Amino acid sequence: MNSVLITHIRKSIDLNDSEAEIVLSYFDHQTIKKKTLLLEEGQICNKQYFIIKGCLRSYIINNKGNEQTLQFGIESWWITDYMSFQSQNTSHFFIQAIENSDVISINKTELEELLARLPKLERYFKLILQKSFGAAQLRIKYLFTMTAEERFHHFRDSFPEFVQRVPQYMLASYLDFSPEFMSKIRAGKM
Amino acid sequence: MNSVLITHIRKSIDLNDSEAEIVLSYFDHQTIKKKTLLLEEGQICNKQYFIIKGCLRSYIINNKGNEQTLQFGIESWWITDYMSFQSQNTSHFFIQAIENSDVISINKTELEELLARLPKLERYFKLILQKSFGAAQLRIKYLFTMTAEERFHHFRDSFPEFVQRVPQYMLASYLDFSPEFMSKIRAGKM
Repeated sequence: MNSVLITHIRKSIDLNDSEAEIVLSYFDHQTIKKKTLLLEEGQICNKQYFIIKGCLRSYIINNKGNEQTLQFGIESWWITDYMSFQSQNTSHFFIQAIENSDVISINKTELEELLARLPKLERYFKLILQKSFGAAQLRIKYLFTMTAEERFHHFRDSFPEFVQRVPQYMLASYLDFSPEFMSKIRAGKM
Repeated sequence: MNSVLITHIRKSIDLNDSEAEIVLSYFDHQTIKKKTLLLEEGQICNKQYFIIKGCLRSYIINNKGNEQTLQFGIESWWITDYMSFQSQNTSHFFIQAIENSDVISINKTELEELLARLPKLERYFKLILQKSFGAAQLRIKYLFTMTAEERFHHFRDSFPEFVQRVPQYMLASYLDFSPEFMSKIRAGKM
């Protein structure tokens, strides 16, 4: 099952079988039920999660007291609060399973040990972060420049499977429009 | 002058003097005048810029036709469009000097050569990206959760020197409120 991670790493860097074994020896596997919280606001985020199967999201509570989704993750995606993980300060985010999911995780100490043993993995993690940061830059652009309708169509074209898998109200909060507007789009009225 | 970069790298990883020389041999130095564009929307972003002296920003043209600042950078900050740099697709962003500035830059081919010669630098770039992505996650949270007034106070407390250095209309667009609201804040009316 954990070979999902090895396959993913090998898309970016070479890793022989004994190195792959070392990598996997540092990870813990968890099967978690839908709605399980892996991180809550105010906790220190001590783990990076890699999704083997299922779907997770990070969210915040906005100033109206509502959950607002900031990020989704599916198979072969990493999810964590990098700022809390790096600084070991308390997190601003929640991380939650939105399907029954299989995840593997590594904590900060283990990750540093693994990177010291296999420094070539730094490049893999750098490339993951480069993609994530690039996507976050674009997300900020789209929040500023697209109408709700344009954001929905762009998201649907870019990530069609999310639109099927993710509850409507979460997608609405991610795309920053009301559930009512979302219902209209789904009903083909927009 | 370029020792600014070496000092910055040495905050994250060890680098001896001969390695430092290798690093610097890969960078080009540019002195650029205020308002110079280093990247324009539609171009391929082929360089990563490190700011030795001065101040730069990335911005977009929003759907009202106005410039909207997405990121500022000052001394010892990196600025680029990572998505365009990585994929070599056209950029969605502009990068511009907002003061007369000294920058050094490295292109994609040179960077890959340098990383092949000194793989330890992967960790340095990973840590830069980890901070940048963590900050982008928080920025998205603040756009969703803070009022304009709260965003201004938070920004002023976090980056006091920017409020002095950066033109008012750019800060207003970065914090996503009108120049009129910004003027009120500056005049102490908010």
